[in-house]
Amino acid sequence: MPVFKAEELRKLSEEIFTAYGATAEEAKIVSDFLIKANLCGHDSHGLIRVIQYVEAIEKGILRPGAKVEVVRETPSSALLKGNWGFGQIVAKKAMELAIKKARENTVSIVCAFDLYHIGRLADYTLLAAENDMIGIAMANSTPTVAPYGGKERLLSTAPLSYAFPTGKEKIFVLDIATSVCAEGKIRVALHKGEKLPEGFIIDKEGNPSRNPVDLYEGGSILPLGGDLVGYKGFGLGLVVEVMGGILSNAKCAYEADKEGNGIFFEAINIEAFMSIDEFKSRIDALMRRIKSSKLRAGFKEILLPGEPELRTEMKRRKEGIYVPEKTWKEIIKVADKKGVEVTKFVSESKGSSE
Amino acid sequence: MPVFKAEELRKLSEEIFTAYGATAEEAKIVSDFLIKANLCGHDSHGLIRVIQYVEAIEKGILRPGAKVEVVRETPSSALLKGNWGFGQIVAKKAMELAIKKARENTVSIVCAFDLYHIGRLADYTLLAAENDMIGIAMANSTPTVAPYGGKERLLSTAPLSYAFPTGKEKIFVLDIATSVCAEGKIRVALHKGEKLPEGFIIDKEGNPSRNPVDLYEGGSILPLGGDLVGYKGFGLGLVVEVMGGILSNAKCAYEADKEGNGIFFEAINIEAFMSIDEFKSRIDALMRRIKSSKLRAGFKEILLPGEPELRTEMKRRKEGIYVPEKTWKEIIKVADKKGVEVTKFVSESKGSSE
Repeated sequence: MPVFKAEELRKLSEEIFTAYGATAEEAKIVSDFLIKANLCGHDSHGLIRVIQYVEAIEKGILRPGAKVEVVRETPSSALLKGNWGFGQIVAKKAMELAIKKARENTVSIVCAFDLYHIGRLADYTLLAAENDMIGIAMANSTPTVAPYGGKERLLSTAPLSYAFPTGKEKIFVLDIATSVCAEGKIRVALHKGEKLPEGFIIDKEGNPSRNPVDLYEGGSILPLGGDLVGYKGFGLGLVVEVMGGILSNAKCAYEADKEGNGIFFEAINIEAFMSIDEFKSRIDALMRRIKSSKLRAGFKEILLPGEPELRTEMKRRKEGIYVPEKTWKEIIKVADKKGVEVTKFVSESKGSSE
Repeated sequence: MPVFKAEELRKLSEEIFTAYGATAEEAKIVSDFLIKANLCGHDSHGLIRVIQYVEAIEKGILRPGAKVEVVRETPSSALLKGNWGFGQIVAKKAMELAIKKARENTVSIVCAFDLYHIGRLADYTLLAAENDMIGIAMANSTPTVAPYGGKERLLSTAPLSYAFPTGKEKIFVLDIATSVCAEGKIRVALHKGEKLPEGFIIDKEGNPSRNPVDLYEGGSILPLGGDLVGYKGFGLGLVVEVMGGILSNAKCAYEADKEGNGIFFEAINIEAFMSIDEFKSRIDALMRRIKSSKLRAGFKEILLPGEPELRTEMKRRKEGIYVPEKTWKEIIKVADKKGVEVTKFVSESKGSSE
């Protein structure tokens, strides 16, 4: 697999988006988020999305330059209409507005509808944490998940994220699908020709399956909790559908014309409850104590939410980002189409798979 | 097992609490919540707690008549100090205050510390839903759960709850532990002499166990998600510890002197986003579509969050509440101690086990 420096891929992505009509600001922000996802190890949300996004631009689904409208507003809430602009642009605006409102009014909620794919929720909740606030995010999308006991795709993977400011500890950000796994994991297994663990998906008849192809032939991902307590992940998924799909006005996954993400963002000003220093020192203490737990056989350490991603980021900033041949060829194709010379931006070094 | 009418048990509970020094208001509210838990099928949070609470009163841990203090306040938040009063009293006040503040300021958060056991979260989030608001609750307590990969009890079962107002559909309330199950389920298996399903607990050495007694001999409950994706339940549990234990000032489960519950309550005024009628009609449509899902083999229907409890309540309101002999004997004992004549309040009818 070819391996590239993050900054090179970021610059290339920016050039491609600009060539497809994105404004300079859009191209920069979206590319920042996508390459950050690669750095964190979430390749399913990284460079590969450039291909999907430019296709969506060509189809007229995603509209570069779209203006974000404030449809409803109170001092501590807002409802944004994205007009099918880049999800990252709408989502970043949404969290920035939530932070501003929480600073003035302690707690705030900003929802948005009519926006394209926003990428990883962690990017937005961390924005709140970097501003010394608690960040909360929920997002729904198109259906891939069956209800507990059902065999139809009626929910999205319905992720949620929480980020907290920390003191000496580096990061605390949870970003999880409420299904047993994100769709990206099934896709990776499919591309690698690997079997899935038991309990991840069912085929279109509702039978348990370990074959990733079954998901793409009418099967469903199962809710977090499996056959025994899957009502928990199912319930959480429904909550995300309500917050990200109904309260946001963005439609639920089950609705026939559902497109893009619907988002629910919240920011909480910690200072209304305690000093930010005290909060940070307490969360540090919690994190340290949990990390010091005696281990079960088979585990090497306790990993806190956000820690695996942070480590991958450190590694990839040094070693570069591996891009699968198939993805790379498609990137070159979409770049060529608009006369973007890929070699001007990247100096590929051959590397083996990570 | 003896079986009683809910109203009789409620009245008896009220009399016992009053005899132990509770005010009339405290005795009524706490008894209402406890017997409601029995009605809903959550016997672990029902009449059996009368025994625990009066013991706590005698030990001076729980203080009837305690005044709830507002320690910090903004127009959309409050931090309450419970002064070790009944958790139900503090929690009800907390959600009522959250509802009032959300009505005036769209969204609000009320946290509380120094309070005894609050019972089921669903009771408080439903209070918000009955007031046409979204209700959110998180609570931490004493440690019973191991971190993902660890074998020490460092987290509480860390439940969270969401309730939404519905239109024609009867109820939508999720109330789940972020561990694979609540402690009550292990206790029930212990009392019945049953084995647990795999993946629920580990013994004190960190080995998987199906023997409920292992939990009470130094073992731990596992986080939701099991060996494969337990980092999800673990992450959610940590979030609840931060919201219910740090932001609330109530201490985290791992802290040596942790007692009672710490709570994080939130209310969201839907009218800031859409009319309440529209919200209700959309949530009804979501619920109906999900319930109509084609079923997997082995499932008879899709049960929505809150539906099993509602059905049990209908049944038990008609048929009565079964109380295990052991519980009943202890209730008589605590009643006798303060001269409460049990027979004055209940007319037992003998029933077989449900």
